[in-house]
Amino acid sequence: MKAIRAAFLDFVGDPFFVPESESVRYLPDGLLVIEDGMVKDFGAFETLGAKYAELEVVSYQGKLILPGFIDLHVHYPQTEAIGAYGEQLLAWLNKYIFPTEAKFRDKNYAREIASFFLDELLRNGTTTAVVLTTIFPQSVEVLFEEAQRRHMRIVAGQMLMTRNAPDFLINDAKTAYAQTKAQIQKWHGNGRLLYAITPRFAITSTDEELALAGKLKAEFPDVYVHTHLSENLKEIELTAELFPHSKDYLNVYEQFGLVGDRSIFAHCIHLDDSAFERLAEVGAAIAFCPTSNLFLGSGLFKLGKAKSVDRPIPVGLATDVGAGTSFSMLQTMCDAYKVAQLQGESLSPFQAFYLATLGAAKALTLADKLGNFEIGKEADFVVLDMQATPLMALRNRGGIPQTLETLSEQIFATTILGDDRAIAATYVAGTRVSEQLF
Amino acid sequence: MKAIRAAFLDFVGDPFFVPESESVRYLPDGLLVIEDGMVKDFGAFETLGAKYAELEVVSYQGKLILPGFIDLHVHYPQTEAIGAYGEQLLAWLNKYIFPTEAKFRDKNYAREIASFFLDELLRNGTTTAVVLTTIFPQSVEVLFEEAQRRHMRIVAGQMLMTRNAPDFLINDAKTAYAQTKAQIQKWHGNGRLLYAITPRFAITSTDEELALAGKLKAEFPDVYVHTHLSENLKEIELTAELFPHSKDYLNVYEQFGLVGDRSIFAHCIHLDDSAFERLAEVGAAIAFCPTSNLFLGSGLFKLGKAKSVDRPIPVGLATDVGAGTSFSMLQTMCDAYKVAQLQGESLSPFQAFYLATLGAAKALTLADKLGNFEIGKEADFVVLDMQATPLMALRNRGGIPQTLETLSEQIFATTILGDDRAIAATYVAGTRVSEQLF
Repeated sequence: MKAIRAAFLDFVGDPFFVPESESVRYLPDGLLVIEDGMVKDFGAFETLGAKYAELEVVSYQGKLILPGFIDLHVHYPQTEAIGAYGEQLLAWLNKYIFPTEAKFRDKNYAREIASFFLDELLRNGTTTAVVLTTIFPQSVEVLFEEAQRRHMRIVAGQMLMTRNAPDFLINDAKTAYAQTKAQIQKWHGNGRLLYAITPRFAITSTDEELALAGKLKAEFPDVYVHTHLSENLKEIELTAELFPHSKDYLNVYEQFGLVGDRSIFAHCIHLDDSAFERLAEVGAAIAFCPTSNLFLGSGLFKLGKAKSVDRPIPVGLATDVGAGTSFSMLQTMCDAYKVAQLQGESLSPFQAFYLATLGAAKALTLADKLGNFEIGKEADFVVLDMQATPLMALRNRGGIPQTLETLSEQIFATTILGDDRAIAATYVAGTRVSEQLF
Repeated sequence: MKAIRAAFLDFVGDPFFVPESESVRYLPDGLLVIEDGMVKDFGAFETLGAKYAELEVVSYQGKLILPGFIDLHVHYPQTEAIGAYGEQLLAWLNKYIFPTEAKFRDKNYAREIASFFLDELLRNGTTTAVVLTTIFPQSVEVLFEEAQRRHMRIVAGQMLMTRNAPDFLINDAKTAYAQTKAQIQKWHGNGRLLYAITPRFAITSTDEELALAGKLKAEFPDVYVHTHLSENLKEIELTAELFPHSKDYLNVYEQFGLVGDRSIFAHCIHLDDSAFERLAEVGAAIAFCPTSNLFLGSGLFKLGKAKSVDRPIPVGLATDVGAGTSFSMLQTMCDAYKVAQLQGESLSPFQAFYLATLGAAKALTLADKLGNFEIGKEADFVVLDMQATPLMALRNRGGIPQTLETLSEQIFATTILGDDRAIAATYVAGTRVSEQLF
């Protein structure tokens, strides 16, 4: 058993719908007690200090501790292709991404990148991610192995692709079904790891493959489905051509039984009201990927519509590296704010941090395990340094905030000015990640 | 006399109009010879090495040297207000910026921020900036003094405001005229410093003040005019109400003799073709401020129209801190790329770097002194580390590029992933800036 003393911020409600005074929990001087990687106790130091007086206490004075960030959509094989120039979605895939993914046939190479990728997540304070891989089973294997070595809660699955891609990235649908099934049996619920059935997107799957994906989902109802939806206008057009019997893009996935409360759809930029309603009805989640949507010029996600009070959809933030331009959830929040501003909306800093913590945990139906400091949850957290650079130190001078208003200002400035340097330390299951990464 | 050996990139033409093979000059192993703060010689090491064999050579192996960045529009008093939440232009000014600028009545405070600001520019590789101040003459004075101590080429001037602002930021037009005149006489052409007549924007000036600004410009034709133009729709609407006799926003400035080849207009987001044509005709320049335009939700600058081959307008990049979200010209290029992508256009990395170096020098009519490594120019330059972070090192592995194509990829990734850490050193007038800043 051990304890951490610092300022703590987490959420006990959704700040899109519940006033900040009730949804935000802020302890300027708090104590987090950890046992066996779980939250054993949590509260004001004033209240808990005496009870745990015997305990070794690690103190992070002047720092703010938050639940570990959750990245709801990220491609690990694209790590090395981040920042590839000049194209929008479909051309970008063909020119840069497919050739990069082909390299993951080599298991040693895949392990090198998987290892770098997971460390990069941790350097950025991200402790859970929903990860896309490649069509090669070995690329999935090494990711899960490396995640397990780091005790990280990672959701991932083999990329399903049977058409409209270069030969070297085409798999046979039945083979992919068998590979996926074996992986589910090996990895889903193995320690902290979870599995996601992962058709790349409708365009690269045949009807046969989507039907087999639906069959898998029926056989293993508690695994996830993770894919892309309505990112780019040309993608939508091509999808409509390929699936003439679907009434819209979402309906392709619906027809194959792939839309439910454990489905995660990345982007959803161009959805109409009907699709939003159908996602809301079943509790399917959206991964909002602002840096990626700007980088590829895909468009502006309508967060206000997704978080409508009438039919709210679970939404989480995501980097979508390699189309995303940063592994940092802080920089992702900065671009999320810009996407909202361009539409005349304001994304508050509390809302932004909610989307990267408890909101994303809810999107994953994992809010019983992750997302805030409730007793009994897993102790994944981030130590934030809001004065990490000279400019941040100037902007946030005055030390740890005493009021919600000052806290709001400081965390907002941290999303605008911060990056990996603002992550002073990351803890996974109660244990501090190697300092060498920071 | 001294020499620097490294890879060098600069421009000898405009990559918007001239093929890269003719506009980009790249020396994978070059030598820059400096005497009295100026470029004495420049070329391939192979060619020049023997000639300067006796000279002390500083070698930056694996680094890329570029001309110092030029920030064409930035508010130094807003440094500490960067990242202020939730408003668009006019409300943001009233809520955050005007109260911040009021603090610059205090000369000691103004000096503290001026000093921080200039160091922050240098940490980010920016050696020249066109800087806005406040209505207080002492805020201009300390900026020029601190810039002179650092030998920086800074263009600045007192902010002119006579209405539509809080009382504490209102000046009398005749007083401001006299103050500006005295400052021009003291600072314009004093060492490397240059003066800009700086009405904040049309809204905050009376006809009388703009007339006096025009009078000053006529009295001192070689000083600059620097202001805002067509940033936000509500601003444009209010301007039209306040100046009913002007046919459009630009025409307000035209009527008072403020539009010429030494005029710099920030933003220009919502200009129509006629305004673009009139700017082009006289050679007036535009400061493109992408991080700011996204942060305030002002809109998307039409760079393609401004750089039209028929009637090109001089354009430079600008951070526009405090509405801008970074002092880094690299991060500014990243957002410039995103602004282009959202409009279905591609801003090439060479074009982006041109806009921050030679392009901006031309916009300032200072291309005889700044912007590239031509012999006789001032030796302001930046040592770029394209592998400054673990992710950049992975992305740009392989060392210094040998071809324009690889160079293009690496500098592009550097604009997407880079920040102040990518600036290994900055030189001003041939002298390395204190390493403590880096």
